[in-house]
Amino acid sequence: MDKTAGRHPKIKDVASSAGVSVTTVSRVLNGHPYVREEIRAKVAASIEALGYSPSSIARSLVRRSTDLIGVIVSDITASFFSTILGSIEEAASAKGYAILVSNIAEDPEKELRYLKLFKGMRVAGIIVMHEPTTAAIRRYAASIGIPLVVSSARPAGLSEPSVNIDDETAAYDAASYLAGLGHRAIALIGGDCERLTTARMRYDGYRRALAEKGIEADPALVKVGDFKTQDGYMLMGELLRTSPRPSAVFALSDDMAAGAMNRVMDEGLRVPEDISIMGFDDSALASMTRPALTTVHQPIADIGSISVESLIRGIEGDRPSTEGIILRHRIVERASCARKA
Amino acid sequence: MDKTAGRHPKIKDVASSAGVSVTTVSRVLNGHPYVREEIRAKVAASIEALGYSPSSIARSLVRRSTDLIGVIVSDITASFFSTILGSIEEAASAKGYAILVSNIAEDPEKELRYLKLFKGMRVAGIIVMHEPTTAAIRRYAASIGIPLVVSSARPAGLSEPSVNIDDETAAYDAASYLAGLGHRAIALIGGDCERLTTARMRYDGYRRALAEKGIEADPALVKVGDFKTQDGYMLMGELLRTSPRPSAVFALSDDMAAGAMNRVMDEGLRVPEDISIMGFDDSALASMTRPALTTVHQPIADIGSISVESLIRGIEGDRPSTEGIILRHRIVERASCARKA
Repeated sequence: MDKTAGRHPKIKDVASSAGVSVTTVSRVLNGHPYVREEIRAKVAASIEALGYSPSSIARSLVRRSTDLIGVIVSDITASFFSTILGSIEEAASAKGYAILVSNIAEDPEKELRYLKLFKGMRVAGIIVMHEPTTAAIRRYAASIGIPLVVSSARPAGLSEPSVNIDDETAAYDAASYLAGLGHRAIALIGGDCERLTTARMRYDGYRRALAEKGIEADPALVKVGDFKTQDGYMLMGELLRTSPRPSAVFALSDDMAAGAMNRVMDEGLRVPEDISIMGFDDSALASMTRPALTTVHQPIADIGSISVESLIRGIEGDRPSTEGIILRHRIVERASCARKA
Repeated sequence: MDKTAGRHPKIKDVASSAGVSVTTVSRVLNGHPYVREEIRAKVAASIEALGYSPSSIARSLVRRSTDLIGVIVSDITASFFSTILGSIEEAASAKGYAILVSNIAEDPEKELRYLKLFKGMRVAGIIVMHEPTTAAIRRYAASIGIPLVVSSARPAGLSEPSVNIDDETAAYDAASYLAGLGHRAIALIGGDCERLTTARMRYDGYRRALAEKGIEADPALVKVGDFKTQDGYMLMGELLRTSPRPSAVFALSDDMAAGAMNRVMDEGLRVPEDISIMGFDDSALASMTRPALTTVHQPIADIGSISVESLIRGIEGDRPSTEGIILRHRIVERASCARKA
């Protein structure tokens, strides 16, 4: 009769079944480097045969990693991130990976904490959708020994594979589009160019478009927000009080564009008849507002799936690519922008 | 001279420093039940003193749990969940816990997988915001040995502490509000009452309100969706073709209400002049639409913080409460509902 029947098998049962010492089993479970591969296999087979159920942590120690992908986002409540998390989830799931999401929520110290957490739980790979980053984080990421992909962000100094659009050209195209509709007082509701490379690139593209059209940049028409609806609403209030009032506003997220649009309508003006509003992202929100947002389409489903594929190539041992993948953006015309009256 | 200087201390260094065998250290790391507490403390002290850095997994084995809270949601892209995740994050963070979010994404098999994953990584506690649940999940949850709180959901057969509003009364109040505005053809865009207790309770409340007002329930005015914007849009299309056409629509999520509102406007009708639309949740989206949604306010910030507090009480060893906490809802009047013309 099997001595282990009716109770949970213990580590010593595994040891005796594999014909090795408890110390050896423990070494296998702890990923000790000096265990021969055949011993490792024998122990794994005994674990399997006995139905020994160490925690999945212990199992992941045997396999040296899990089928988990850790995802770090700036703001889980933003429509861009909730949309792209849906596409990452789908792509990861199709490849047999589960995702765990952690949220920086404006607290940069959390990023290092989550990276360490993910390393500790031996995730197979990490997707970072967040910038900026600190020197401590850069050093840690470089030493972490876990495949990492940066998606929709450009944390300075990280040389990991990345997936982005060309943010400078995208913003250039958006501002050129508004100028092409006859607008000259084109405001920007942007982000902090000092902290965020992506925000600076978009600002540069906006400036380049204005310069090409011979429009002098007016600092009073540039507002800095943090990509949330409330910011768009508040900053649009300031823009309505500038003189001359802008006839078009380019907001660097759909959330800020939606907030700006609401402010315009709440003050009794019309979008787009009185003021054109353009967004950025083409998140799920962009087609939900009325008027629906004219915006810069980021290929969110592709960004998600390509980030996952690139990460899995790294996980499966292909030499980590350091290339930066640039996907194509395009302008999506909906109903929030019109020719200047 | 310290023999361990200049290299990473190994498990045998810890053993020799603590005056115990490697097997004993390994037992401590593996949470073996027969290690005396003083030995455990001695080993932990040596780990600390040497700066031995087992993975944080190993450290969590010493401590027997982590400072992680696992959160399981139905749909990370829904505005209700992205709003409440923000509040859970904030409450958990204030107590020193990090949260990891996993997303069921319509795939019920994922729930068991994530529960096992969370158990394996020794999270301190789990918040489940998802129903329905299967017999396998109920059995697993009952045996998991980790504090668990159910939030904004009523998975049948789970007797864990829960945090909800009174969904029946909330829907009763909403339908009564619409009836009070003179509407009699009040449609419901609901959820699957067979699968979802919450959807059934809200349906019951809607029916009770109609009955009290002497309004005969018309099955043609009840549509079943899955809480997403697209469903609201599509089902509203069907409702616009029913005869008689409803003059008011009560949607069981703000997302579906926003979709329904867009459909009405896209077909050239006005909200609320031609059709009143009422939502449910008071998620961030509710005040972002124009007209802004009249809706059932769920106290989302409180649901998040009370779920976290209740969970932490369980984690800190208070006898797990089996009480169901019911928080107060209220009707928030904005601009999407009007008196019947």
